[in-house]
Amino acid sequence: MKALVFHGPGKRRWEEKPRPGIDKPTDAVVRITHTTICGTDLHILKGDVPAVKDGRILGHEGVGVVEEVGDGVSNIQVGDEVLISCITSCGRCDYCKRGVYSHCRDGGWILGHLIDGTQAEYVRIPHADNSLYPLPKGIDHAAAVMLSDILPTGHEIGALNGEVKLGDTVAIVGAGPIGLAALMTSRFYSPARIIMIDPDENRLAMAKQLGATDTIARDPLEAIDKLTGGEGVDVAMEAVGIPETFDVCQRIVRPGGHIANIGVHGKSVDLQLQDLWIKNITLRTGLVNTDTIPVLMRVVESGGVEPAGLVTHRFKLDDIEKAYDIFSEAAKEQAIKMLLTAE
Amino acid sequence: MKALVFHGPGKRRWEEKPRPGIDKPTDAVVRITHTTICGTDLHILKGDVPAVKDGRILGHEGVGVVEEVGDGVSNIQVGDEVLISCITSCGRCDYCKRGVYSHCRDGGWILGHLIDGTQAEYVRIPHADNSLYPLPKGIDHAAAVMLSDILPTGHEIGALNGEVKLGDTVAIVGAGPIGLAALMTSRFYSPARIIMIDPDENRLAMAKQLGATDTIARDPLEAIDKLTGGEGVDVAMEAVGIPETFDVCQRIVRPGGHIANIGVHGKSVDLQLQDLWIKNITLRTGLVNTDTIPVLMRVVESGGVEPAGLVTHRFKLDDIEKAYDIFSEAAKEQAIKMLLTAE
Repeated sequence: MKALVFHGPGKRRWEEKPRPGIDKPTDAVVRITHTTICGTDLHILKGDVPAVKDGRILGHEGVGVVEEVGDGVSNIQVGDEVLISCITSCGRCDYCKRGVYSHCRDGGWILGHLIDGTQAEYVRIPHADNSLYPLPKGIDHAAAVMLSDILPTGHEIGALNGEVKLGDTVAIVGAGPIGLAALMTSRFYSPARIIMIDPDENRLAMAKQLGATDTIARDPLEAIDKLTGGEGVDVAMEAVGIPETFDVCQRIVRPGGHIANIGVHGKSVDLQLQDLWIKNITLRTGLVNTDTIPVLMRVVESGGVEPAGLVTHRFKLDDIEKAYDIFSEAAKEQAIKMLLTAE
Repeated sequence: MKALVFHGPGKRRWEEKPRPGIDKPTDAVVRITHTTICGTDLHILKGDVPAVKDGRILGHEGVGVVEEVGDGVSNIQVGDEVLISCITSCGRCDYCKRGVYSHCRDGGWILGHLIDGTQAEYVRIPHADNSLYPLPKGIDHAAAVMLSDILPTGHEIGALNGEVKLGDTVAIVGAGPIGLAALMTSRFYSPARIIMIDPDENRLAMAKQLGATDTIARDPLEAIDKLTGGEGVDVAMEAVGIPETFDVCQRIVRPGGHIANIGVHGKSVDLQLQDLWIKNITLRTGLVNTDTIPVLMRVVESGGVEPAGLVTHRFKLDDIEKAYDIFSEAAKEQAIKMLLTAE
């Protein structure tokens, strides 16, 4: 089969690899019909994730058809159309039993990281009963592939971790794919205002289309001060992953407010605890659990959210190298999510 | 009347001051029968709280008898024995209506800070209906004065903000007064282990008496690693207020765990977000709201907690300067809380 293979920092190739089979009775093999590229894949290519070794097939998002299942799989059958969660979970360990699938003792984020991933014609999925979700008939596959990672991450690590409530003022720092997913899913909870902060005017325009009430391209501290009459925001979401954007969040949150850190950080940040100790704030971090995939799927089915709106570019799976070229210059190319479809 | 007056960094004097009266219809004047000294008072004396000006009467904890009430006070009557909350709250503003009394727009922590405090023979309490609590008959006054600040702070900013649950492993960094109050109140929620971390063996011995299951005097990271089999703790509480102790908390918390910052910090801290972003942790900060005073009072009445156990030294109110001398060298003097009683 063909697969997108990592060969050390800066090197990737769409090349021939052995087709995976069943290794353990709880495995399934899925023929990929749709996949996409995540910002995390670019981090891996930069060499930021040293656990990813030369020869690893990348990708942790996808939709496909089950080709083969192990003897221990009971919920999933050959021929099922399935969504692949970016988080593999055994469902049996102490973390899984608390719903913290992201820290499953025999899973978590392993696809395209510690085991071969979904940017391939076929992928082996461990713990298939817990890690695959049969797709409802007729669901748009472009929407479904957004449920592997980006929409649940925006929802769980943005909206839910930020405790977005009716009437809140929410600020999202970063209007890239994950910031926009946080925007889409924050709207479920009917905040009064969603303010998007990003230097890129194209992304802010997209944010407006997706329901942002206000946008800020520069001088965020002054702009938020003016927009909120000096009060600050109820919820500040960090959707970039650098100290500068985290700093904006900690300075705009009001007393009693929430900071939801969604960004993947490579460095420590200077937490202004001399100001924040007295402000009764809650800061949450996290890798997505994807425990809200089933509910998000129902919302997609009912038309309550249209995640396919995040797809800006479409390619054949064979052309994934071109898609990487474009996604690597996402801002310039006005790219949010790339949809890759197998023939 | 006599009062303990701040005269700039390092200077305090028990001296004559005018007796307070009713300024606004919502005020009450209380004759102090019991008060105590808080670590925050020492911070003020060091000059760490520049908002406190020369001439200010210190103190934000106390029990007393109502001497006078304004026309707008309806719940409190002359002659009532009352507990004074360290937090003054109007009960009417948006913060109060959400229970965030600490950020009341016409209150918050103002006693012994922005207005004259409780280390005096008399004190004026604004918004008396919301800021005073009539004492149940027969309650121990040494216990009651611990309900002004330290016990609610341990409870709300430690146990509740840390979401201590049945069976949890809790570590409290700092076994001073506030760390011990956090220990006492964490026990309400039946964690499996409460590990106290402090270099002072006397304080650790007191922690053991109050129910700590384990104590650590040095090398906390290695010791926690060993005690938890490398898993880390469910809840880490910072009860000192310096970067070093915050750092211990962020390194011992397990995935999905909670950090409750109770300490008053004067500097920023280096938050290890490159490790924590993926760990699904919750960090909370805060000034106490004292909204749990009524429930804590019921628990004290029923014998469910004995906060008078925190009192290590007793003085007449007239001798408050001696009490300050001892409390300033609290570790050496084996001092936790000083009880000051008016004749």
